[in-house]
Parts: sequence; C-alpha cells; structure tokens
Amino acid sequence: MKNIAILGATGSIGTQTLDVLRFHKDDFNLIGISAHRSTQSIMNIIDEFLPKTVAMTDFEAYNIILDYCTKKGYDIEVNFGIEGLNKVATRREVDIVVTSVVGMVGLEPTLNAIWAGKTIALANKETLVVAGELVMSEAKKNNVTILPVDSEHSAIFQSLQGNKMNKIDKILLTASGGPFRGKKIDDLSAVTLEDALKHPNWSMGPKITIDSSTLMNKGLEVIEAHWLFNCDYDKIEVVVHPQSVIHSMVQYEDGAVIAQLGTPDMKLPIQYALNYPSRKSNIGGTLDFKTLRTLTFETPDLQTFKCLDLAFKAGKLGKLMPCILNAANEACVSLFLNNRIEFLQIGDVVEECMNKFDYNKEVTLENVKSIDKEVRDYVFKKYE
Amino acid sequence: MKNIAILGATGSIGTQTLDVLRFHKDDFNLIGISAHRSTQSIMNIIDEFLPKTVAMTDFEAYNIILDYCTKKGYDIEVNFGIEGLNKVATRREVDIVVTSVVGMVGLEPTLNAIWAGKTIALANKETLVVAGELVMSEAKKNNVTILPVDSEHSAIFQSLQGNKMNKIDKILLTASGGPFRGKKIDDLSAVTLEDALKHPNWSMGPKITIDSSTLMNKGLEVIEAHWLFNCDYDKIEVVVHPQSVIHSMVQYEDGAVIAQLGTPDMKLPIQYALNYPSRKSNIGGTLDFKTLRTLTFETPDLQTFKCLDLAFKAGKLGKLMPCILNAANEACVSLFLNNRIEFLQIGDVVEECMNKFDYNKEVTLENVKSIDKEVRDYVFKKYE
Repeated sequence: MKNIAILGATGSIGTQTLDVLRFHKDDFNLIGISAHRSTQSIMNIIDEFLPKTVAMTDFEAYNIILDYCTKKGYDIEVNFGIEGLNKVATRREVDIVVTSVVGMVGLEPTLNAIWAGKTIALANKETLVVAGELVMSEAKKNNVTILPVDSEHSAIFQSLQGNKMNKIDKILLTASGGPFRGKKIDDLSAVTLEDALKHPNWSMGPKITIDSSTLMNKGLEVIEAHWLFNCDYDKIEVVVHPQSVIHSMVQYEDGAVIAQLGTPDMKLPIQYALNYPSRKSNIGGTLDFKTLRTLTFETPDLQTFKCLDLAFKAGKLGKLMPCILNAANEACVSLFLNNRIEFLQIGDVVEECMNKFDYNKEVTLENVKSIDKEVRDYVFKKYE
Repeated sequence: MKNIAILGATGSIGTQTLDVLRFHKDDFNLIGISAHRSTQSIMNIIDEFLPKTVAMTDFEAYNIILDYCTKKGYDIEVNFGIEGLNKVATRREVDIVVTSVVGMVGLEPTLNAIWAGKTIALANKETLVVAGELVMSEAKKNNVTILPVDSEHSAIFQSLQGNKMNKIDKILLTASGGPFRGKKIDDLSAVTLEDALKHPNWSMGPKITIDSSTLMNKGLEVIEAHWLFNCDYDKIEVVVHPQSVIHSMVQYEDGAVIAQLGTPDMKLPIQYALNYPSRKSNIGGTLDFKTLRTLTFETPDLQTFKCLDLAFKAGKLGKLMPCILNAANEACVSLFLNNRIEFLQIGDVVEECMNKFDYNKEVTLENVKSIDKEVRDYVFKKYE
C-alpha cells in the first residue's frame, strides 16, 4: 500500500492519476489533494476517497471546501495557498507526491516534498525548467527519487532500465509536431485560439496544449530531460514523429536504440511511476501492430517554431535563463488564452524577455521567484 | 579480459565476431575456433589470433590445418569432427562459447559447453529448435547463461533488461518479410535460387538467406524465442516490418512496449552478448532519424509462407516435432541450394515429414539425433 498526495488533483494528470488509483484500489491510499478553485471536483474527490488533507490556492475556494468538510463532518485538514500545498506535499503519511500542478507554482511544494524525503512523481515540468540545478541537487542530497510522469520522459526512463552502467550517446525526444506541423510562419499569422487548442493526438489541459502548438512544450521537455537524465543538450535530439506511438528513445554508445512505444494515454506513465519498478495490469489501451501501418519521422522546423530553438538556447545558457524563458512563456500563454496577443507573438515576446533580463545569477529559490515575477510583470504590463 | 571460443569461425557470424574481437582487442582473447572445411580462412585466423585450439569437421581440412600448424611450428591443438568441436567448446580457459555453426550440428558442442559451465553466446538457433527443452533445462541445472546473438532475440533480450519482475504480455518478433514479401503462391512457383538468395536488408550465409525467403527463419526464431524467454506460443506475434529498423519488441502487461532499434548489422548483437550487461563503443553504424523517414508494419501471409505456420504448429505440438520440422527443412534447403527441388517444395516436404514421422517421444540427445537422421535420410532418398 503506497500513500499518495496529488498536487493539482483536478487537472488532466490529476484526474488520470485518480483513475489509476481507482483501478488499483488495493495498491494505493489517497492521503492528500490540492486544486486551485475547482471546488465541485474537489468535493467529489473528497466524498469518494476521504483524503486526510486538502489544499486550495484560491481563497474563496478554500472557504467553500472548509465549510463543506465542516458541514459533512469530515475529519479533513483544509489548507490554503502555497503554504497549503507545502503541507499536503509534506504530510507525514505520504510516500509519493504527484506534482501535477501547471506552471512554476509547482516549484516550492516540490522542494518541500524533497526536503521531507518524499518520492516525487514529477508531472510539473516547469519545476525542473526553472530550477533544475537546485531541485536535482536537493533530491540527491536528500536521497530522493524523482520519477518522470511526462510520457516522453517516462519513455526515456523506461528505456534506461537495465542500462545503468551504459553511456548514453543520444536522447531521442519525440514530438508529435502539434496541430501546426508542416506550416510556415505565414500560415501561422492568422492562427486562432481554437486552432491552437486542437491537439492531434493527446487530450491535455489548455496551457500544455498551447505549448504543444508552439513546440515550447518540447523545448521545456528538452530542459527537463537535461536535468532528469544528466544529459548534455548536444546529446538531446528532437525527432518529430506525428503518430505519437514511439514516446521517446535512448541511443547508447554501441549504436543500439531502446524505445518505449504505447498508445497516447497518460495513465500508462502515471501508473509506471507509481508502481516503479513494477508494472501493473493495463488500465489504458494496447498498440495493435495489425492495424498500425506506418510510423514516420521528420526534423523539427526551428525557423517556424522558434520556441523550441529558444528553449535549447536558454538551456545551454543555463542559470536563470530557462526561468526567464518559462516565465515569459507562461505569461504569453495566459495572454493568448485570453485573446490578448497573437499566436506568433508568444515566441517573439519570449525572445524579447530573454534578451532583456539578466540571467547570470545563481539558481536559488529566491532568485528564481524574483526573476519569475519580474518577467511576468513586464509581459503583463506591456501586452495585457 | 574474456576468453572466447567461436564454433563456426569462418561463417557470417563467426567472421563478424572476429571483427568485434579486433575492434575491442583489450577486452577479448580468442582461445578456440572451428570450421567445416574453409582451410584458407582458418589459416588466416590462426596467423592473426594464434588461438590455442582448432577443430575442423571435414577430415581433409583437418589434415591440412594439422600440417599447417606443424610446418609453422605453432603450439596449437588441432582436433577433428564433432569430438573436436566439443573439445574447443569445453577448453578450460574459455569463458564464452559463440555457437555460430549452421544447423543442428551445433547441438552437441553447445550441450558440452553447458555441462562445462561456459556462458553461451547463441547464434545457432537450430540448437534450441531441435532440443530447446533439453538445452534450457541443462543450462538451468548448470547455472549457465545463454545470451542470444540473433538480432531479434538480442533485441528482445535488451528490451527485457530492467523488467525482470514484470509479466510479458506479448513478444513482437519483427520480420523483414524477405525478398518475396507481398508475393502469392502463384508468383513463387517460378522462383529461382538466385532470387531467393537476394535478401533485402541483411547480408547472411546461404542457409539462413533461404530460410528468410521462406519465412522458415522466422518460424525457427519463434521456437527459439519460446525457449529463450519462456514464453507461450500464443504470446509470440510475428510483425512484418520491411525496413528491419525495429529488431523486435516486448509488450508488458501495462501495455508499454519496449523495443530495440538499430542498423541491420550483426556486430551490434554480437558485441552486446560478449560484453553483457555493458555496452561498448560502436563498431557498426548508427540510425539517423533525420534521414529515416518511414517505418511500416504488416501481418505475415501464412497462406503463402506456410513454413512460418508450420513452425508455430511444430512448436505448439512440442516434443520431437520441431526437430522433425528442422531436419526436413535443413535437407530441403540443401536440396534447393543444389537445384534439386523447387522453392515451393520446401514447405510441402516439411509438412509431409511433419505428418509422416512420430514426434511423440522424449526430447533426449539420442532421440533428437535419431529422428533427425531418419528425416534427413527420407528427404534425401526421396527428392535428391
């Protein structure tokens, strides 16, 4: 029996994590959950799983859940804000913290969970993007395992099993290419929010779906892979693979490539992280090579999708640059989701911020939080 | 430093094994070699590697090599026949025996090597086809590791690493489909020896190239996979994959598929077996996903390529049936290589023998040798 806390329990990964817990009832206890302001979903989860602790980061939502638990007579600790997230993440009984919040807000509770010695099932890639150096060194110091939940990183992690003594020649990070694969700059100037929200293969939340359409998502994954697998950027190659069947690959020094393939279902990597190193019975679909006719591969178009290029550059520069990239991107995506900026502006504004802000400072929690706020404030002030 | 013996040192796998030893000079000593009658090649290997023991299975060739060693003043033991193979395979200093002879002749020396506690790098699939039950149980008793060298089985073996505790849902054995992929029975009636010897992807010896053109090679590999990985026939699926980039896959119970990909170069699996569990620097080529555009998958045509179907049937019946299948096939391929029978007769004669001979006996070395001889004699007598 493993005790689980889910930060971001009502989002796409959170909901699918709950599906995994439901499917494998005897293997897991849900101890803690958090959400921003999805009160109805949180009430449903509370009724079904009776967790011991809950956190809401929206104050009104916090009050609603507090009242609900009181009214129902539930013995559940209800917490508020980032402090609340930290409490859920560090709760004594918890073995594994699933970090499935969206954006840089995941950093602090993840660090707190690491300091408390919890295993991290990492679905919040921004944590490693903004402070990979800090997070990985703290994890090492505290002897904490970070298990990837992103399908690509789970695929890489699975492809690394049984090869601990072997040198990685290259990580081949696959990308579907998103809804605008094959398009050029001119085609993208008139892109609408609706177009960008149509991902060809994966069903995900709005932030990551927009990131997939700009290829920034792949860029963030490159930085995430760099930190998770201690791999130079020169050894990370993005391969566009529109069918999303091969979820990523590792090439070893002998030329052998090990790959993980599967249906595009996040429940598989979630389940693998929660059960690692064991696998459990199939909750999602199964590939059928009788009907699967063709897999194709392309090189990414870095000219059109400059966000991917910018992410490589930010990663290589290091220090606070990935944090600047991420903050600018989070602000831009939020503006784009509210129809405040155009699709192509996302990359342009990220680039503007990378040129504007000083990245050459130590990666401390304080510096990360301060540059993150500075960049966001700048973007919102100028473009909102 | 590992000490190596190669049974069948002048064939395709033997020659490539020597390339691996040359490339990694500091890792390996060549202690023993054998060949049938390729005296010139053996002399060259002797001059270059100065092994301690040699075996020739042709008597005239044995005398030539004996004279050569005497004349040159080499302190090399020269042996003859199956007894000679056994001596090379069991020589005290040897750590790993590479069994790269072709056909059922590999069985006895492999068993002797197992009894002597040597690690087996198995490139002679017929050994497991004719007596898998016996070979695997002797290996277990003697605590001997059998490392696959066939590219498909090496791929499966690589895909199993780090998954020892996990249940296999399916082995997906890939097949190029051979030179006659897509053809129907009527197209194959006029096939010439020359046509059958043209394999699209792999450069191999004549016996295995013919087996690839009939898909009997894949059938033998199915039986080999059954024994190597202790996997039910119902869980082995042959996937036709004409590009030979994915060398095989394993699907686990959670739906995840792990695959090994690489260039079609036998030096990779040879090297992996010799260095296992480590990998060493690349001696062969490297896949380039920038130029590799498309991978395709098809289901095998069991009507046209009845040998594959017969192999599944023989495997499922078990006991001596796979040995009957193999003996008939070895005889037929030899006749076809000498233009004595037609291409399509290979499957027909194998089927005839499977119907004719009694398979329901215990798999002992004696029974295997006796049924093997009986079937061969029958085929040669009737069709030569």
